[in-house]
Amino acid sequence: MRRKEFQADEQECIDFLEEKHDGVLTFSGADGWPKAVPLNYAWHDGAVYFHGSKQGEKMAGIAADPRAEFVVYQAHAFIPSYFTEPYLACPATVFFRSVRIRGTVAQVEEPAEKASALAALLRNMQPEGGHSPIDASDPRYASSLRGVAVMRLDPESLTGKFKFGQNVPEKKRENIAERLLERGLPGDPDTVERIRGGGARK
Amino acid sequence: MRRKEFQADEQECIDFLEEKHDGVLTFSGADGWPKAVPLNYAWHDGAVYFHGSKQGEKMAGIAADPRAEFVVYQAHAFIPSYFTEPYLACPATVFFRSVRIRGTVAQVEEPAEKASALAALLRNMQPEGGHSPIDASDPRYASSLRGVAVMRLDPESLTGKFKFGQNVPEKKRENIAERLLERGLPGDPDTVERIRGGGARK
Repeated sequence: MRRKEFQADEQECIDFLEEKHDGVLTFSGADGWPKAVPLNYAWHDGAVYFHGSKQGEKMAGIAADPRAEFVVYQAHAFIPSYFTEPYLACPATVFFRSVRIRGTVAQVEEPAEKASALAALLRNMQPEGGHSPIDASDPRYASSLRGVAVMRLDPESLTGKFKFGQNVPEKKRENIAERLLERGLPGDPDTVERIRGGGARK
Repeated sequence: MRRKEFQADEQECIDFLEEKHDGVLTFSGADGWPKAVPLNYAWHDGAVYFHGSKQGEKMAGIAADPRAEFVVYQAHAFIPSYFTEPYLACPATVFFRSVRIRGTVAQVEEPAEKASALAALLRNMQPEGGHSPIDASDPRYASSLRGVAVMRLDPESLTGKFKFGQNVPEKKRENIAERLLERGLPGDPDTVERIRGGGARK
């Protein structure tokens, strides 16, 4: 059941996709079974780019049916039941952000687009540089560029769910925030900002 | 392409599933599109248990086609290209563990199994207790137990991929380990143990 109060807007989804580096790509395998493959990605020019081997289940599945969904998830804080309820376990929950992207996957063949996608992937992970620019016209990259598969997921829809207690009455929500500040785990101060900002940090 | 040198054995997969708390469930939606839903889970009695709403896309999709895959993933360390290569970006990679479970999903109706699965889910997240035991015979839990959906993924196969440089010659691998110890990010010492242990910590 999707609850309206958790929905993130498109800009919040894109900010999250730019912040994170891995997610799970879902597609129907060549054997007809659903497949879940964790991957590094880059959000680049309005699409999700991945790279991988030219052979294997991703290529075979996507070639037979290009429909896919990609999901990026971050658990921010576990909220124990006793923060809000002395007896029942039911209120225990996790505050999190997730974005799901539905669309079709195309294999990228054009060397310049391949190079630019790989550069975006590496920029995410290695922003400090320390390598020669990935350039389709650099002969030292030519055979690697030919050998690697690059895929592009063109989004048809983006759906963000940012759950930070928006369904809880304000007094109870503020009580959770105070308990988190007392607990003081590494992610807790950030979670409190999101609770008070309705999912985004104000 | 699946490389043999990264394969984890069944016990390593189960240890990983017991250690982690969330993953992504993949199935075919009622609209025929692949779906990727992040979920908390418990590995309990040889199966993966989830809970959720009785209405919605998971229930509708699974009712139409119970085949599913669930994946749990942890990125351990990004290995920058310059750890092993002064010029090309190609060696940049991530060391990670992932386990994929393929099987069919059944809805759990029996109150005692429901209660025991929910207790396992909560034990993962709230091992300190602080709530009354989740018990199907406790009248204060009866209506919540009736209202919540519990699903069980019965594994048909478990596949673990633990990538810690097993494909790299030993001297180069030890060089990566030394660079990680110098870098000293929070996960790096653990990653070094795994590099030296072939994926598991020795």
